[in-house]
Amino acid sequence: MKRIAILGSTGSIGQQTLEVVRAFSDRFQIVGLGAGSNLKLLARQIDEFRPKLVSFQAEDSSLPSGNYQLLALEEVAIHPEVDLVLIATSGKAGLAPALAAIRAKKQIALANKEVLVMAGEIVMAEAERCGVEIMPVDSEHSAIWQCLRGEPRESVARLILTASGGPFYHYSREQLAAVTPEQALKHPTWQMGRKVTIDSATLMNKGMEVIEAHWLFNLPQERIKVLIHPQSLVHSLVEFTDGSVKAQLSPPDMRLPIQYTLSYPERLSNPQLAKIDWNKFVPLSFEPPDLTRFPCLGLAIEVAEEGGTYPAALCAADEVAVELFLSHHISFLDIAKLVEETLQHHQSINHPPLEEIFAADAWAREYAENWRPK
Amino acid sequence: MKRIAILGSTGSIGQQTLEVVRAFSDRFQIVGLGAGSNLKLLARQIDEFRPKLVSFQAEDSSLPSGNYQLLALEEVAIHPEVDLVLIATSGKAGLAPALAAIRAKKQIALANKEVLVMAGEIVMAEAERCGVEIMPVDSEHSAIWQCLRGEPRESVARLILTASGGPFYHYSREQLAAVTPEQALKHPTWQMGRKVTIDSATLMNKGMEVIEAHWLFNLPQERIKVLIHPQSLVHSLVEFTDGSVKAQLSPPDMRLPIQYTLSYPERLSNPQLAKIDWNKFVPLSFEPPDLTRFPCLGLAIEVAEEGGTYPAALCAADEVAVELFLSHHISFLDIAKLVEETLQHHQSINHPPLEEIFAADAWAREYAENWRPK
Repeated sequence: MKRIAILGSTGSIGQQTLEVVRAFSDRFQIVGLGAGSNLKLLARQIDEFRPKLVSFQAEDSSLPSGNYQLLALEEVAIHPEVDLVLIATSGKAGLAPALAAIRAKKQIALANKEVLVMAGEIVMAEAERCGVEIMPVDSEHSAIWQCLRGEPRESVARLILTASGGPFYHYSREQLAAVTPEQALKHPTWQMGRKVTIDSATLMNKGMEVIEAHWLFNLPQERIKVLIHPQSLVHSLVEFTDGSVKAQLSPPDMRLPIQYTLSYPERLSNPQLAKIDWNKFVPLSFEPPDLTRFPCLGLAIEVAEEGGTYPAALCAADEVAVELFLSHHISFLDIAKLVEETLQHHQSINHPPLEEIFAADAWAREYAENWRPK
Repeated sequence: MKRIAILGSTGSIGQQTLEVVRAFSDRFQIVGLGAGSNLKLLARQIDEFRPKLVSFQAEDSSLPSGNYQLLALEEVAIHPEVDLVLIATSGKAGLAPALAAIRAKKQIALANKEVLVMAGEIVMAEAERCGVEIMPVDSEHSAIWQCLRGEPRESVARLILTASGGPFYHYSREQLAAVTPEQALKHPTWQMGRKVTIDSATLMNKGMEVIEAHWLFNLPQERIKVLIHPQSLVHSLVEFTDGSVKAQLSPPDMRLPIQYTLSYPERLSNPQLAKIDWNKFVPLSFEPPDLTRFPCLGLAIEVAEEGGTYPAALCAADEVAVELFLSHHISFLDIAKLVEETLQHHQSINHPPLEEIFAADAWAREYAENWRPK
C-alpha cells in the first residue's frame, strides 16, 4: 500500500489524482489532503478518503469532524506515515512543502510549475543532496521522463517539448488583439484550470515548461526545443546523440501521467483511461513555433537562459497579467507586454537564495499590478 | 575495441555495417567477413579491413592473399577472437551460423529475417538457454527494442509495427494486377535489396516482421499490430498496459539500427547519419492496413498464429514467387496466390526440429516452382 498525501487536493490535478486513487484502492491510500480555499470540496474528500492528515489554509470549524490531525502543508509533507507527496498546489505555496518533503526523503510527484520555475536551482540541488528523484506530473515532462527511461544520461542530445499551440495558434496579430477571456478559456485539447488554460493560449505555459525541463533534466536551454503539435497526442520527444528520437503518445488525459508517478516504476492497466484508437486514421504534425505572434514563449526561453531571479519575476508578472486579462483590464496581447516590461525593469540576482526569490516575486507582482497599457 | 564478424558482408546491410565501422575505427574492428557470391566486393573489403577470418561460399583462388584464415561461416561465427556477429546473410544460410554464434555466447546482431521466421522457436530457446540477447537490426524491431528499453516486460501491452505501405499502397486491385518488376523495385522511402523491396511492395515483408517480432519479444501474434505509416519516420511503437505509447523515430537509414547494435548500450554521435529536420513542417500519419488488397500480410499473420513449419513454407514459397515475378513469369498479384496455395497444400508439423524446417522449406520451394497461374 503506497501512502499518499496530496497538497492541493481540490484543484484540477488534485481531483484527478483522487480519481486514480479511487481506481486502485488496493494499492494507494490517501493519508493526507491539503487545500487552500475550496472548503466544500475538501470536506467531501475527507468524508470519502478518511485521511489521517488534513491541511486547510484558513482554520475553519465547518470542516467535517473526523479522526484526522489538522496540520500545516509542510507538516503533512514530512509526516512519517506519508510515502509519496503529490504537490499540486498552485503558485509559490508549493515551494516550502516541496523542499520539506525532499528533505524528508519522500517520493515527490510534482505538478506545481512555480516550484521549479522559481526555485529550480535550489530544489534540484536539495533533491540531489537527498537522493530524491522528482517525478514530473506535467504531461510533457512525464513524456520526457518516460522516454529517458533506461537510457544513459550521456546519450541525450535534445529534449523536444510539444505544444498544442492553444486555440489561437493560427490567428493573426489583429485577431489575437481581439481575443476575449471567454474565448481563451476554451482549450481545444486539454481540460485544465483557468490560469494554465490562458498560459497555454499565450504559450507562456510552454515557456515555463522549458525552464522546468532545464532544471528537471539538467540540460541547458539551447538543448530544449519546442514544437507546435496541434493534435496533443505526442506529449514530448527526446533526441539521442545517434539521431534516434523517442516520443511518448497518449490521449490528452492528465490521469495517465498522474498515475505513472503513483505506480512508477510499474505501469497499471486502468480501464478509465482511454487509449489511442489506431483503427482510425491518425494524423500528427509538428512545426516550429512562431515567436513573433507568441512573444511569451520567447520571453520565457530568454529567462531560462538568464536564470537568476528572472524566472520568479516572470512567474509573478504572468500571474498578475493573466488575472488582469481575465478581469477584462488588459488585452490578450498586453499579457506579453506586461511581462516583458516587468522583466526589463527587474534587477536580477544570480544564484538567489529563497528570500531573494520571494523578494523578486513581490517586486514583480507590485510592478505588474501598477502596469497599465500605453 | 569491439571485434566484429559480418556474415553477409557484401549485401546491402553488410556494406552499410562496414560504413559504420569505418566511421568508428577507434571502437570497432572487423575480424571476420563472410560472403556468398560477390567475390570482387569481398576482395575489396578484405583489402580495406584486413580481417583475420574470411568465409567465401565457393573456394576461389582469386581472393586476395593476406594474413587471414579461410573458414566456413559457422567457424567465423564461433571464433574466439569475435565479440559480435552480425548476421546479414540472406535466406536460410544464416540459420546454422546464428545457432553456432548463440551457443558460443557471442553478441548477436540479427539482420536475417529467415532465421527467426523459419526457426524462431529453436533460435530463441537457444538464446535463452545460453543467456544471449538477440539484437535486431531491422528498423522496426530495433525501434521496438529501443522503446522497450528500461521498461519491465509485464508493462508491455502491444507492439505496433509500422509499414510504409510500399509504392502501391493506394493502387486498386486492377492497378496492382498490372504492376511490373521495374515499378516494384522502386521503393519510396528505403534503399534495400531486390527481394526485400518486392516484399515491401506486397507487405509480405511486414507479415514476416510480425512473425519475427512474435519470437523476438515473446508476445502472441494478436498483441502485434501493423499500421501503414507512409512517411517511414516512426519505425515502430510499443503500447504499454497503462495506455502510454512510445515511438522511435529517425530518417529512414539502416545505418542507425546497425550502429545501435554495435554500440549498444551506448549511443554514438555519427555525423554521417541525417537527423529529422524539425525546423520544417513534419506530418506523420497512421492507418490500419488493407488486407484485401494486400493479402500477403494476412497470410503471414495467419502463419504467425499457426506456427509449426508453416512459416518455413511461407518463406520458401515467397522467395520462389518473388523470383518468378522478377523474371516476368508471374504477375504481382500472383505472388500472394502462389504463397496461399503453397500454404494450403502444406502439411505442417508442430514444434519442428531443424530438419523438419528444412524439409518444409524444400517441399514448399518445389511446390512453388511448379506452380503456374490458372
